[in-house]
Amino acid sequence: MIPRYTRKEMAQIWEPQTRFRIWFEIEAYATEALAELGVVPREAAAVIWDKGKDAEFDVARIDEIEAVTKHDVIAFLTHLAEIVGPEARFVHQGMTSSDVLDTCLNVQLARAADLLIEDVDGLLAALKRRAFEHKNTVCIGRSHGIHAEPTTFGIKLAQAHAEFQRARERLVMARKEIATCAISGAVGTFANIDPRVEEYVAEKMGLTPEPVSTQVIPRDRHAMYFAALAVVASSIERLATEIRHLQRTEVLEAEEYFSPGQKGSSAMPHKRNPVLTENLTGLARLVRSAVIPALENVALWHERDISHSSVERGIGPDATIHLDFALKRLTGVIDKLLVYPENMQRNLDRLGGLVHSQRVLLALTQKGMSREDSYAAVQRNAMPVWRGEGNFLELLKKDKDVSALLTAAELESLFDLGYHTKHTDTIFRRVFGEA
Amino acid sequence: MIPRYTRKEMAQIWEPQTRFRIWFEIEAYATEALAELGVVPREAAAVIWDKGKDAEFDVARIDEIEAVTKHDVIAFLTHLAEIVGPEARFVHQGMTSSDVLDTCLNVQLARAADLLIEDVDGLLAALKRRAFEHKNTVCIGRSHGIHAEPTTFGIKLAQAHAEFQRARERLVMARKEIATCAISGAVGTFANIDPRVEEYVAEKMGLTPEPVSTQVIPRDRHAMYFAALAVVASSIERLATEIRHLQRTEVLEAEEYFSPGQKGSSAMPHKRNPVLTENLTGLARLVRSAVIPALENVALWHERDISHSSVERGIGPDATIHLDFALKRLTGVIDKLLVYPENMQRNLDRLGGLVHSQRVLLALTQKGMSREDSYAAVQRNAMPVWRGEGNFLELLKKDKDVSALLTAAELESLFDLGYHTKHTDTIFRRVFGEA
Amino acid sequence: MIPRYTRKEMAQIWEPQTRFRIWFEIEAYATEALAELGVVPREAAAVIWDKGKDAEFDVARIDEIEAVTKHDVIAFLTHLAEIVGPEARFVHQGMTSSDVLDTCLNVQLARAADLLIEDVDGLLAALKRRAFEHKNTVCIGRSHGIHAEPTTFGIKLAQAHAEFQRARERLVMARKEIATCAISGAVGTFANIDPRVEEYVAEKMGLTPEPVSTQVIPRDRHAMYFAALAVVASSIERLATEIRHLQRTEVLEAEEYFSPGQKGSSAMPHKRNPVLTENLTGLARLVRSAVIPALENVALWHERDISHSSVERGIGPDATIHLDFALKRLTGVIDKLLVYPENMQRNLDRLGGLVHSQRVLLALTQKGMSREDSYAAVQRNAMPVWRGEGNFLELLKKDKDVSALLTAAELESLFDLGYHTKHTDTIFRRVFGEA
Amino acid sequence: MIPRYTRKEMAQIWEPQTRFRIWFEIEAYATEALAELGVVPREAAAVIWDKGKDAEFDVARIDEIEAVTKHDVIAFLTHLAEIVGPEARFVHQGMTSSDVLDTCLNVQLARAADLLIEDVDGLLAALKRRAFEHKNTVCIGRSHGIHAEPTTFGIKLAQAHAEFQRARERLVMARKEIATCAISGAVGTFANIDPRVEEYVAEKMGLTPEPVSTQVIPRDRHAMYFAALAVVASSIERLATEIRHLQRTEVLEAEEYFSPGQKGSSAMPHKRNPVLTENLTGLARLVRSAVIPALENVALWHERDISHSSVERGIGPDATIHLDFALKRLTGVIDKLLVYPENMQRNLDRLGGLVHSQRVLLALTQKGMSREDSYAAVQRNAMPVWRGEGNFLELLKKDKDVSALLTAAELESLFDLGYHTKHTDTIFRRVFGEA
Repeated sequence: MIPRYTRKEMAQIWEPQTRFRIWFEIEAYATEALAELGVVPREAAAVIWDKGKDAEFDVARIDEIEAVTKHDVIAFLTHLAEIVGPEARFVHQGMTSSDVLDTCLNVQLARAADLLIEDVDGLLAALKRRAFEHKNTVCIGRSHGIHAEPTTFGIKLAQAHAEFQRARERLVMARKEIATCAISGAVGTFANIDPRVEEYVAEKMGLTPEPVSTQVIPRDRHAMYFAALAVVASSIERLATEIRHLQRTEVLEAEEYFSPGQKGSSAMPHKRNPVLTENLTGLARLVRSAVIPALENVALWHERDISHSSVERGIGPDATIHLDFALKRLTGVIDKLLVYPENMQRNLDRLGGLVHSQRVLLALTQKGMSREDSYAAVQRNAMPVWRGEGNFLELLKKDKDVSALLTAAELESLFDLGYHTKHTDTIFRRVFGEA
Repeated sequence: MIPRYTRKEMAQIWEPQTRFRIWFEIEAYATEALAELGVVPREAAAVIWDKGKDAEFDVARIDEIEAVTKHDVIAFLTHLAEIVGPEARFVHQGMTSSDVLDTCLNVQLARAADLLIEDVDGLLAALKRRAFEHKNTVCIGRSHGIHAEPTTFGIKLAQAHAEFQRARERLVMARKEIATCAISGAVGTFANIDPRVEEYVAEKMGLTPEPVSTQVIPRDRHAMYFAALAVVASSIERLATEIRHLQRTEVLEAEEYFSPGQKGSSAMPHKRNPVLTENLTGLARLVRSAVIPALENVALWHERDISHSSVERGIGPDATIHLDFALKRLTGVIDKLLVYPENMQRNLDRLGGLVHSQRVLLALTQKGMSREDSYAAVQRNAMPVWRGEGNFLELLKKDKDVSALLTAAELESLFDLGYHTKHTDTIFRRVFGEA
Repeated sequence: MIPRYTRKEMAQIWEPQTRFRIWFEIEAYATEALAELGVVPREAAAVIWDKGKDAEFDVARIDEIEAVTKHDVIAFLTHLAEIVGPEARFVHQGMTSSDVLDTCLNVQLARAADLLIEDVDGLLAALKRRAFEHKNTVCIGRSHGIHAEPTTFGIKLAQAHAEFQRARERLVMARKEIATCAISGAVGTFANIDPRVEEYVAEKMGLTPEPVSTQVIPRDRHAMYFAALAVVASSIERLATEIRHLQRTEVLEAEEYFSPGQKGSSAMPHKRNPVLTENLTGLARLVRSAVIPALENVALWHERDISHSSVERGIGPDATIHLDFALKRLTGVIDKLLVYPENMQRNLDRLGGLVHSQRVLLALTQKGMSREDSYAAVQRNAMPVWRGEGNFLELLKKDKDVSALLTAAELESLFDLGYHTKHTDTIFRRVFGEA
Repeated sequence: MIPRYTRKEMAQIWEPQTRFRIWFEIEAYATEALAELGVVPREAAAVIWDKGKDAEFDVARIDEIEAVTKHDVIAFLTHLAEIVGPEARFVHQGMTSSDVLDTCLNVQLARAADLLIEDVDGLLAALKRRAFEHKNTVCIGRSHGIHAEPTTFGIKLAQAHAEFQRARERLVMARKEIATCAISGAVGTFANIDPRVEEYVAEKMGLTPEPVSTQVIPRDRHAMYFAALAVVASSIERLATEIRHLQRTEVLEAEEYFSPGQKGSSAMPHKRNPVLTENLTGLARLVRSAVIPALENVALWHERDISHSSVERGIGPDATIHLDFALKRLTGVIDKLLVYPENMQRNLDRLGGLVHSQRVLLALTQKGMSREDSYAAVQRNAMPVWRGEGNFLELLKKDKDVSALLTAAELESLFDLGYHTKHTDTIFRRVFGEA
């Protein structure tokens, strides 16, 4: 957890107070269910709720007890007994620590997923607004960093929108993967606790019962969760990289908003750097770094070992906090992105019409020239233009083989931007359901 | 691709001949659609199908052409022209190489997913059969490698079954992620090709059209695909690790089948090693190693760069081939696993009844002793037994505080294995829908 | 940074106050050098040292300034000006923020490496002490988890000692990799600052000048640093895994120290779990997770981009803090490890003499039997023993082919533990230089 | 192993024939040493050398035997016996398979390292030649993709040279890490084989004896080896990324050589794409992907398990072959790189003098203006120029606060490129020892 990349909303999910609150709820609901089943007195369950429901847990006191017992749940239960009194002996009946710990972790991860989904919704809204704003803002499309053919800035954003729709689905999937509950005892056999307790607690906590837990909830679920987060982070990196490229001095088609008072460099007062998107690139690396340890957590020994625990104390908060921050930051970048259509047009014109090379190639083949000959004819006229020597259209007009098949007027008609943007509505309808 | 870890069925998907065949189909279907739209002559489309449908593509010839053009799709199209004749000029009209390459890769990945799903189905069948066979074979459950409480070997396998049901769902999800088609031209604007061509090819190839492709199909899909494979591999590692543990000399509750003529060691003729499951552990590492490069492939520059390509030439075949092999190998291991119920019972008895410690603890709290006092009472009688000094039940009977609350008969009744297995049916019903 | 896995000594290196102190020293030394070169007044340099050398930097105030400038070094310099007064304008002359940031990071990483080397020295001492203590404590060696041939517990620890000697060398190498200094200006050309300033600051800070920095110190150095830490973490995992195995209920040859008052399980009072070494296994995963982001940080754009920064704010403290904690914890585990020679002997005897199978094989070949026939003869007598049926020595004596070549007395002489331990001194001399 | 990214020289190291040849040499040298020690007849050792030294091993036959024995070394020994005759029974005396396998792997990895070092030497030569060629070719330095201050193209290449000098050192270190030999028997105790055999074989094979092997050579060495390769790969990615950026249409300061007949795109005949450096970016990802599995291989169980083996069958050849190919490819790219000094100058001029902003800032502080005021004054004149409105020098001249301290002539003198390149010789001397 790096304070500067932490939003309070996500951090709160991971605070000790929140964790103890969730532990209490799990224990209290379980005791309630046990009371229903006649295992513990109904009055005890009521007392536990009454005394605990508004209690502020004393984190320092719990730490103090843990220093002796070297066991966090026992430390909490001991502290809870101090709050609840003698009825506390009915708490945790037939349960094992992991029943509490694992169910709690999943509650936290599910809440984190909810926040992340909300973040993506905000990003999708920003992307949609800007995509429609620039639906017809023509710019050059680039493959390999080299001018290819025209597209529109709106299509670029529509692509991002489609990608973050998938990000949303992946987060929904990830949430579903980990929203399970286990109250199954020491090795998951329900020896000391009725399966109906698990069902009751699951329902109350908004989870589903884990079909087979073995003291722990199986970690393939968590691996999938963190993998989904890593994919979302990589999509953030992709969009961030796009903006970093567009802000390059030589390109300057778009720019991160630069606030009054901001300084780009301690040494060079002229600088306006894409630092937010570079930061997002770094944060994506951090979020991704959770995947391998999460995968390594899957193969626990027998019914469980505790090697996953230290890993999750790290990646649980870190990956969700960083991704939350990154999604919000990216939303801000998109929302306030400075877009320069004139520069887009200027760049588009830079290659002297070469972006129309494919269309000329196709026209030649339509006129009966072989694909290979057409390619050679277009390429030999393109190369001088690439080197800054001459105008593509003029060179084509002068080419004997080309002009034998295409008139000057026909050639000119091939140099038309509208040709490239005619399906923008189709693409928008695919992405937004409207155009 | 490591020959010894390669099954022919999966390898074939990645052979050049298969790839060229899929390329041909994409091109031929696209030409067919173009003919429908009146862009190319219907007869040309027919000739292309006719000449190409049974053609054996000459891989060496294509390599030879690529050595000059340094472009694989152009090399293929040149070779195709040698097969098809002059009508070949109508092939690839308005398309870009990636339309072919990316759609083909997704066809291959989808087919690979189909095979993997089939593999998992086989594994699930084996797990189910053995789970029911050993539904009531009692064995010790272990947390931290230490005896905890009894469970059954069937429950262990039921857990694995539940985990591989999730693996199956993940593979179905992964398949859906990548089963898309792009025929959208140089930067995805459909400038030179009608979107209906994409729809037609997609349908014919069993794919859905990619909402927005930008020459390439976005790589977040592939990242998700390989992440799903990595999670499945980690589940394999978990089950493999379980078997390795069970085969340890001191444990020997189960053993990989050892074939006649097999030698466990060149030096030590007495050895029977769990080499298959150790091998699976290693293969899991290999499959997982595809995730990070797949994630790094997402942030391509602008509409595309080709850095993903070399990565996918590696991880595409490798991850699917290794996972396929691993799933099949694991299925064989489970199918033929030697299970030793007597050893399970012997191990279970080893801790002198300590596995019943929790039940005694709960009984004491039920009789009114505080949780903390109960814990201390049980622990002080357990520790000598742990060291091999004395019998747990006898020590408890002699303990003044314990015997004040529990009679000898009551204590004896707490040492009952059936207590631990009474919910086996519940667990089986959850996993298999039957018990 | 996870508080429970954090030692104060390492955490302090990463505290804001330490960072600002190092920044100040770099700036003050640089100003000193600039004064030497006549670029700034000598008195100014003196004033800066005087006012700054004992100053407590106001972290909250710096954060406040950064909230406006969005630039941390500018915020610091502004605050420094508040402390130093008008002479502050001579600070940072011709320098760029990264001169300060990167040199500071390397100072921190070098100090962290020093602490880690010290940790390893402590671990080596513990390993050596316990290795000599158990130099002749015979135990079974295991390959594939299966009994192979006898070894000694001292040899096991000698192996670990040799491995952590390598860990030490790797940390020394890692320290050398990153102990460089850059004061080279905006793109590393020394346009605004004389290279002699860099040399001066480097010497004062205990670093060497970076041959070519380009605003930033190249990140291949940091990648190598974190990779070295990851290898050390993996060696920790190896030794931790060994102990976890030895503590398994069925093996119980060694055990983590269990302190009075400690509770192994909230549910099962009999449990003594290897939780420290399981924790070390998890921490190893966390430390390793720094490698990939560190590698991804290498390919910064042109002379620099800032994507590495957020990554390093995470992995810098996290990887060093976790590794420091893990090394200390492992040292404690080794120091206090409970070793059970009787259990080692009992396990050794478990295979009924099968551990001598190789020696019988070799004796048969020495007597003229082919390797293949010898292998078969030994294997057919070993398999019943493996299944618990019969005694290996007796079966061999009764085997016609074996007894034709080896007398009963000869066979008996092959069943001798001393045969296996005769080179222990050689191994100890290799590792410790003494035996 | 991907054929198109494979050079024969490296592939040969990993061929079965090479492996069997190394196995033979290890066995033959060991037998020689055993003969010296009187364990086997001298004549037998001589016969083994004689019959084996020029033998072509029959790979198919070995595979056939392995299909039965399921053990590769036993299969090889059986085949060797077919070649050598009855003396073959003296081969492998007291050895275990891993003595052969692990020593062989290290021979292969050491040879691979030699080739990689040779590759780096070639790359260093190319970098040096081009660096001196362009020592004074001025171009803009960029931070964050934004113009910062001038540098030279030679300095860029000098930086790369310094980085690949480090790469070379890392490969030397990696080679040293793995160039060890183990002939220590089943669990490394030398029970059945004298340590002098190991010393003898080590010397003959150009290795050093592993201080403590435990059937296997410890895998921390291999982890370090693959980590070093990964760092080298990341340095390749950095230089490749630089070239990709420089070839962007809007930048075009350098370009990969484009051979006659080459086609950049199947659809767009005008394209010249940086496909080689994009390919290198992808290959870097592949090489890096070996690090995590290599790290996961370290924690083998007890004296050894075989999980590392499948991993190494993959990453051993793959990482070395891909890195070898990538180094050679990068060398070719650098050797033939097209450099466009005019475009560099044109880009440099693009920001209207803003690249001198820092120098103006420093001049103002030298004249007594506070750093903060100077920054503000320069920034307010820079921002319009950034937007393309006005000339920086002219605006500064007109600024009241600036002109109060700096005359027009003084301002003009600050706009001098030579100011930025005056230390180029210093940098070259640091890197090349000459300038």
